[in-house]
Amino acid sequence: MDLEQRLDQRLAAIAARAEASLADCLAGRGNSLALAPERLSAAMAHGTLAGGKRFRPFLLVECARLFGHEEEAALPAAAAIEVLHCYSLIHDDLPAMDDDDLRRGRPTVHRAYDEATAILAGDALLTLAFEILADPATDPDPAVRIALSLRLARAAGAGGMVGGQMLDLAAEGRSLSEAEIRRLQAMKTGALITAACAMGAELGRAPAEDVARIVRYGDLIGLAFQLADDLLDVEATAETAGKRTGKDAERGKATLVSIHGAAWARGELDRLVAEAQSLLAPYGAAADTLAAAARFVADRRS
Amino acid sequence: MDLEQRLDQRLAAIAARAEASLADCLAGRGNSLALAPERLSAAMAHGTLAGGKRFRPFLLVECARLFGHEEEAALPAAAAIEVLHCYSLIHDDLPAMDDDDLRRGRPTVHRAYDEATAILAGDALLTLAFEILADPATDPDPAVRIALSLRLARAAGAGGMVGGQMLDLAAEGRSLSEAEIRRLQAMKTGALITAACAMGAELGRAPAEDVARIVRYGDLIGLAFQLADDLLDVEATAETAGKRTGKDAERGKATLVSIHGAAWARGELDRLVAEAQSLLAPYGAAADTLAAAARFVADRRS
Repeated sequence: MDLEQRLDQRLAAIAARAEASLADCLAGRGNSLALAPERLSAAMAHGTLAGGKRFRPFLLVECARLFGHEEEAALPAAAAIEVLHCYSLIHDDLPAMDDDDLRRGRPTVHRAYDEATAILAGDALLTLAFEILADPATDPDPAVRIALSLRLARAAGAGGMVGGQMLDLAAEGRSLSEAEIRRLQAMKTGALITAACAMGAELGRAPAEDVARIVRYGDLIGLAFQLADDLLDVEATAETAGKRTGKDAERGKATLVSIHGAAWARGELDRLVAEAQSLLAPYGAAADTLAAAARFVADRRS
Repeated sequence: MDLEQRLDQRLAAIAARAEASLADCLAGRGNSLALAPERLSAAMAHGTLAGGKRFRPFLLVECARLFGHEEEAALPAAAAIEVLHCYSLIHDDLPAMDDDDLRRGRPTVHRAYDEATAILAGDALLTLAFEILADPATDPDPAVRIALSLRLARAAGAGGMVGGQMLDLAAEGRSLSEAEIRRLQAMKTGALITAACAMGAELGRAPAEDVARIVRYGDLIGLAFQLADDLLDVEATAETAGKRTGKDAERGKATLVSIHGAAWARGELDRLVAEAQSLLAPYGAAADTLAAAARFVADRRS
């Protein structure tokens, strides 16, 4: 079995386990969701259990495993970061934001339910992420749980993901400089991807210098992820991508691809992948799937 | 100085200190907000630094002091619960929710800015609450910080405040049973008030039986708070209340006041106050302001 096949297998395996773990959470097992109104739980499940690559759980679990942490023991934290990611998609899709009707080929939450329910489902998922992280089932050590919580809050808040979405909305109809685009993307997409990696390392009790190395790996993966996404928006169709494409050009939104062109972007992706993989070199074969993941991110087609 | 004057003094003092502490947080001191886009920070500040009674911080600080915890040391946790409360007001005011233009006599966040910014400002404040709780400056003991975080997440999520808002939206135009109203109110308003009290007790290292007692006190205060609010909606004017009144009747929304009448409500408030005060009896004079607060909540005029 070659590396690519092993990666595919790991991606599928973690996605399946994350899906099961998310389904448990959304059913209120071990958390306060059991007390939620039915319509709210259903909307939260609609926005969460729609499949998907579960890429952030994958990164978290694999980074934890790199430091000897069991996959099983990393699943609650993986579920926390994924429900947080799903909340951000629900809110981004809202009419006042990106106004999208489809997500992964299904109606978005505000289309399947209504706007108020979508806002509340997002709020509840964001809150659930921190409930999961605070729960002793996530890790027996309170110091580890609170470190994960701090890491996630910083990545997801005004100085991270939410701030990035704000910059993104402000960017429509005006052309950003390259520096502005990089800041926007690092906050909107990069911060949470880096957090997934860092949380995995922290869960695995990695020494500080290893956490710092994994953070750099996460930053590179985040850059590659966004660049591949921009490329996809230019080159793919809605059918192959499973979502609306051509949105950036339609909105006059500048990206690194629109500034430097697709050929540059493909070269830059190669460079990012090589750098990310070199960071993993000290871990040898144990880091094989994470190394392959860097390539996978750059090559993604959906 | 009589009890009422002492309570007024404590309320004013804690509101002023909470205000200063919130202003620090919103200026990004000690948290990731320093990296936030300016417009987002401004919207967050607009929704947070609008004055107000700061009742949840008051409860948290006073419940912590009851167990010998310094006021100063309780301010970060007090700021956390208040920014969470402020996020909920911003989202509740949105056009898709209660569609309110005014809050404490000023334009609501989506009126002063726009809808997308208001959604994001709320999301960012909710996230900031958990960032503050996770920060070592809130308490040196990670086990205490994570306990506060778990308490707040459970109270604020789908099984608490957000779930209550969902029930509230679903209630418009149909008449709820008394049991349904009580469930809605316990979730929408009660959960966070109880959490403020419980978090104070936990911060003060109260033994489990005292935390349980303070939780019951919080539940009663929450009931009184909501009942007084329903009474206010019937009896006050927008001018004296500083917000739109008569909303419940206008929307055909049943409350305990609409079911049982204002006279019953005043009697019930007396009963709740007496019960809350009796719970505090074991703490003697140390609980005087909390006892007075029960009366204050029942008598509130805005």
